[in-house]
Amino acid sequence: MANFKIYEQIKVSLTGHHYSIFICHGGLNCPELLRNFVTSRQVLIVTNQTIAPLYLQTICSAFSDSQCEAVVLNDGELYKNQESITAIYDVLIEKKYSRECTIIALGGGVIGDMAGFAAATYQRGVALIHLPTTLLAQVDSSVGGKTAINHPQAKNMIGSFYQPQGVLIDLATLETLPLREFRAGLAEMIKYGLLAGGEFLRDLTQALKQGLTPGHPQLPRLIAQCCQIKVRYVEADEKEQDQRALLNLGHTFAHALETYTHYQHWLHGEAVAIGLYCAAVLSCKTGLTDKHLVPQVEHMLQNAGLPHKIPSSINLHELRAIMSLDKKVKNNNLTFVVIKEPGICYLSHHITEDSLFNTLTAAVQGE
Amino acid sequence: MANFKIYEQIKVSLTGHHYSIFICHGGLNCPELLRNFVTSRQVLIVTNQTIAPLYLQTICSAFSDSQCEAVVLNDGELYKNQESITAIYDVLIEKKYSRECTIIALGGGVIGDMAGFAAATYQRGVALIHLPTTLLAQVDSSVGGKTAINHPQAKNMIGSFYQPQGVLIDLATLETLPLREFRAGLAEMIKYGLLAGGEFLRDLTQALKQGLTPGHPQLPRLIAQCCQIKVRYVEADEKEQDQRALLNLGHTFAHALETYTHYQHWLHGEAVAIGLYCAAVLSCKTGLTDKHLVPQVEHMLQNAGLPHKIPSSINLHELRAIMSLDKKVKNNNLTFVVIKEPGICYLSHHITEDSLFNTLTAAVQGE
Repeated sequence: MANFKIYEQIKVSLTGHHYSIFICHGGLNCPELLRNFVTSRQVLIVTNQTIAPLYLQTICSAFSDSQCEAVVLNDGELYKNQESITAIYDVLIEKKYSRECTIIALGGGVIGDMAGFAAATYQRGVALIHLPTTLLAQVDSSVGGKTAINHPQAKNMIGSFYQPQGVLIDLATLETLPLREFRAGLAEMIKYGLLAGGEFLRDLTQALKQGLTPGHPQLPRLIAQCCQIKVRYVEADEKEQDQRALLNLGHTFAHALETYTHYQHWLHGEAVAIGLYCAAVLSCKTGLTDKHLVPQVEHMLQNAGLPHKIPSSINLHELRAIMSLDKKVKNNNLTFVVIKEPGICYLSHHITEDSLFNTLTAAVQGE
Repeated sequence: MANFKIYEQIKVSLTGHHYSIFICHGGLNCPELLRNFVTSRQVLIVTNQTIAPLYLQTICSAFSDSQCEAVVLNDGELYKNQESITAIYDVLIEKKYSRECTIIALGGGVIGDMAGFAAATYQRGVALIHLPTTLLAQVDSSVGGKTAINHPQAKNMIGSFYQPQGVLIDLATLETLPLREFRAGLAEMIKYGLLAGGEFLRDLTQALKQGLTPGHPQLPRLIAQCCQIKVRYVEADEKEQDQRALLNLGHTFAHALETYTHYQHWLHGEAVAIGLYCAAVLSCKTGLTDKHLVPQVEHMLQNAGLPHKIPSSINLHELRAIMSLDKKVKNNNLTFVVIKEPGICYLSHHITEDSLFNTLTAAVQGE
């Protein structure tokens, strides 16, 4: 067996479905480990042009005694659309994949969301394995069963809740991850810090101050803790009818920023970073929290090398209009996650237009 | 309240979800009844060009104090595709439908499958109500939560299991249903007769002999019994991992016939009729049943005014090749439902090529 190390196994228990998230180093190079996840004789790997040269051959060789094909999509949120899903369906049908097949998502959040949606809908659902290769996918998007594609007018509008058979997080992939992508993942980790507060936030803050790089000795434990935090929310409310919505902290702002710029200006995590800053400003503007929160969030984001201000080129009225298309609209009211203090967050359906606009204005660069 | 009568309420109990099927006469004309099904203030009605002139205005007027829009699609299995689903998404997004909205499927099986798939995937799932207006949808497709669209190369390849909040079967709609469509629904009823056997089969056989028309006094009870039979299978095995697959009796043949003719020659129920005859012939060819079954099925189909033979213009080798694309393929083996006797059916994964080809040959017209 190849040289690898398992740091942690996190069990996920949902109604009628149980699976594990394994956090390891070197697992993608271990054919025996990969084969343990897959019982099917038909495997389809969904990946992108950036990831394929790095890992595709290794993964394929683990399934050399099965039918194993790959769909290599263009890289980027811009391609998280119906055309990519259709390309996956076409291969599945052309190569006669049956209902017993397994789809493997090999890549970041975009690949996971698309491969997940294809698995959820091909023949009314086939097995799915996540092999997340970005920090953001490892701490956030591969956990919890959300799958989606974007509609030209709004993000993640088409999708389903669909749980995988297993998730294998190989931290070795972070060593080849571009720095900008790594930092984007830190934004979601900071989100978990604000949601959970306490010891996790202290440890994360300290690691960020020291410089949280792929080689940081605390990284495996911090990633595992993020997964644990998310799993707790998902187990309590799988279909996001209530508390799971807190995981959207910063995301109403982030999705609008991404849609405004046609998914071309920021990585998702970078938009989330600005969204977290906006959420802190909003929590302050509404009087829910005191003035210490905003600089606290700002410093964490700065230590992570992330943006936090809205560029002055963004038209705030247009940005506000895009927010109304967000999935989190309920009875014409936008829902925001607000922060009383780290560890104590709420859903708020009653943010006034004034508070919102003051927030956006205050979050603009140079203000 | 308008003049209407509820014949029966069938409760469906699934893990984490419960709803009812109401069988009534005149319910679509009763705004109070319709409003009972919908808690949302945003309603989207999905229907087609044939049904819209008959019922759309009535249904819309029941929701005059809500946002109520309609998507009117082209009529026919040919339009059960991604383009129609995209048209539904576009209206939902353009008109700012939120996650709290309700989609109403007003029409036959094709409309139910598409509206259901749109409801399953818009914002990861919104409420769904079925108002089936064809006999086939009333006894079969509106019950059980299967949603799907066709891929150009194979039927129902893309979809999901997604249960509605309620089903309202208004038998008054059968009075405006073309005779050919009504007969197509009888094919699925005959399927339930073969699956259930016993008293239901005797009653159905007798009614078919007498001429089972929309005015037949036994029709409401027979429809309710079909729903009951199907609900039992669905409750036992919602995701079709085992026994629910028996409901596919005749459907491997039927789907291949429909794909072969590009969904343009037969109504789904007509293809099912031929499929049921093929299933009987196959059960006989494999020695599972005696020679009485084939004429028994043939007479029922004839009494229903349905086809049962494969036209001689169909190339059987091509038809066989299309079958390999069926969802019911497992480890390269096709799965067929075979009949030992009415009431005792099995799944068979080991039908030889010889038996299959002999069956197709024997089922061809003029043989």
